[in-house]
Amino acid sequence: MKKIHIVGLGLLGGSFALAAKEKFSDLLITGTDANEKNLQDALSLGIIQEAKESADPDTDIIILATPADKLNDLLLKTLDQVGEDTLVFDVGSTKAKLCSLVTDHPKRKQYLAAHPIAGTEYSGPKAAFKDLLDRKVMIICELEQTDLSLKEKAYELFDVLNLKLRFMDPEEHDRHLAFVSHLSHISSFMLGKTVLQKMEDEKNIFDMAGSGFASTVRLAKSSPAMWAPILTENKDNILSALDGYISNLTAFRDKIAASDGQGLSDDMKEINKIGDILDLEK
Amino acid sequence: MKKIHIVGLGLLGGSFALAAKEKFSDLLITGTDANEKNLQDALSLGIIQEAKESADPDTDIIILATPADKLNDLLLKTLDQVGEDTLVFDVGSTKAKLCSLVTDHPKRKQYLAAHPIAGTEYSGPKAAFKDLLDRKVMIICELEQTDLSLKEKAYELFDVLNLKLRFMDPEEHDRHLAFVSHLSHISSFMLGKTVLQKMEDEKNIFDMAGSGFASTVRLAKSSPAMWAPILTENKDNILSALDGYISNLTAFRDKIAASDGQGLSDDMKEINKIGDILDLEK
Repeated sequence: MKKIHIVGLGLLGGSFALAAKEKFSDLLITGTDANEKNLQDALSLGIIQEAKESADPDTDIIILATPADKLNDLLLKTLDQVGEDTLVFDVGSTKAKLCSLVTDHPKRKQYLAAHPIAGTEYSGPKAAFKDLLDRKVMIICELEQTDLSLKEKAYELFDVLNLKLRFMDPEEHDRHLAFVSHLSHISSFMLGKTVLQKMEDEKNIFDMAGSGFASTVRLAKSSPAMWAPILTENKDNILSALDGYISNLTAFRDKIAASDGQGLSDDMKEINKIGDILDLEK
Repeated sequence: MKKIHIVGLGLLGGSFALAAKEKFSDLLITGTDANEKNLQDALSLGIIQEAKESADPDTDIIILATPADKLNDLLLKTLDQVGEDTLVFDVGSTKAKLCSLVTDHPKRKQYLAAHPIAGTEYSGPKAAFKDLLDRKVMIICELEQTDLSLKEKAYELFDVLNLKLRFMDPEEHDRHLAFVSHLSHISSFMLGKTVLQKMEDEKNIFDMAGSGFASTVRLAKSSPAMWAPILTENKDNILSALDGYISNLTAFRDKIAASDGQGLSDDMKEINKIGDILDLEK
């Protein structure tokens, strides 16, 4: 691994760079960011060694790590220009639209659709850290569409970063992510909104917020620039998840209104089993 | 501090005991639990030194730490029987009903309405640990109704446990807690339910659950025996919080359905300020 180029030097792009540079000491990482301040930060933080609009032709891997709404055009443009021994992968949170966009592209086999399940509520190059990806799940879609020898380059990088690979089709990916990631962000943002609205009348309401509240509302600090595009790109799946959520909340609400302690308790007992499932997944 | 009696030897009661015993080495802690297994665990874990149905007349402090639906009768019964130099406090998550229940009780001045903002998603004596309460907020309601010298006993305990005292009226307490604690639990339980329902069709859905999902769904492991009573006891405030939450979710849903990226982004930017508020509160 000699040369990596990264477009989008935020939390994910930056963390890929820091981890890769640690593992391959003579690696040159070039990169660019639409935001000039981010680009300068990335240089001074050692995320990239060189600012460069486009990848050199002998680049091993190009990583596309911009917000979801920029990825479509960026992927097409990158494939159009890419050197023939370069692998391109993106790290976007939605996969179906991207995969269908490049189905007939003459350089489709140089693209790998990827999504690392890793992140924090913070964004930008200063939020990046080299252990973000360590032992995280990396989802790969349409693996069979990518050139075999180029895939080897990706595996070389993913292996040293300790990423655990999982394979699925892009539609399944987007459907699952709507439930186990996108919905969590919406629930957290709306929880934040509801309490902020209450704060207009009750100034001291946050005095009593404990660790439970902090935990459920943590994702409400996430970047709107990243999340607004995800919500619209994965609209259909998210609406299905969100409608199910609102309907469950409404049914639970009605049990509270009816003082149906037994019904509430039965519901919660059934849901408690998520504890076993999540602990198993560790 | 010579003798403390605790009714309900779970997460909170047990943690009070372990912390108090560490600070007052010659303290005798007696206690009881409606669940015989919990009682035996509390004895073997050193949470209490002696199992005892009722407090000795020379007990300094009685702590009532049962689920909310048991507290009403328990508080009345305890005050009826209490020795005259004993202070009784409860640690329940709702305060208005309890305070109004004892307004005219002849021993009202021996009661202190308290609520520590401390907990985890686990319950029972084995979940208790001595640092749970360390530097947590302890809310006190109707402070002026409690006898001055008995309050000194409470302060002595609260000070050595490093509890940070806050004072408010019981209605304000219940109103605030509905928003910054009870609503978080409901949102978390319903998130868990929504994904469990989806799992019926999509077996591997939890493979992709990252730390964000874990954080928002953590409270769905909470004890139904504790939470069902809280939800019905604080019904009116919780319905007000929950209706606001559902209405925010519905409005946000409509913006997603309309692919209104700008509107979604504006909403999220506004909500982001909760990050500053929460960080300030640390």
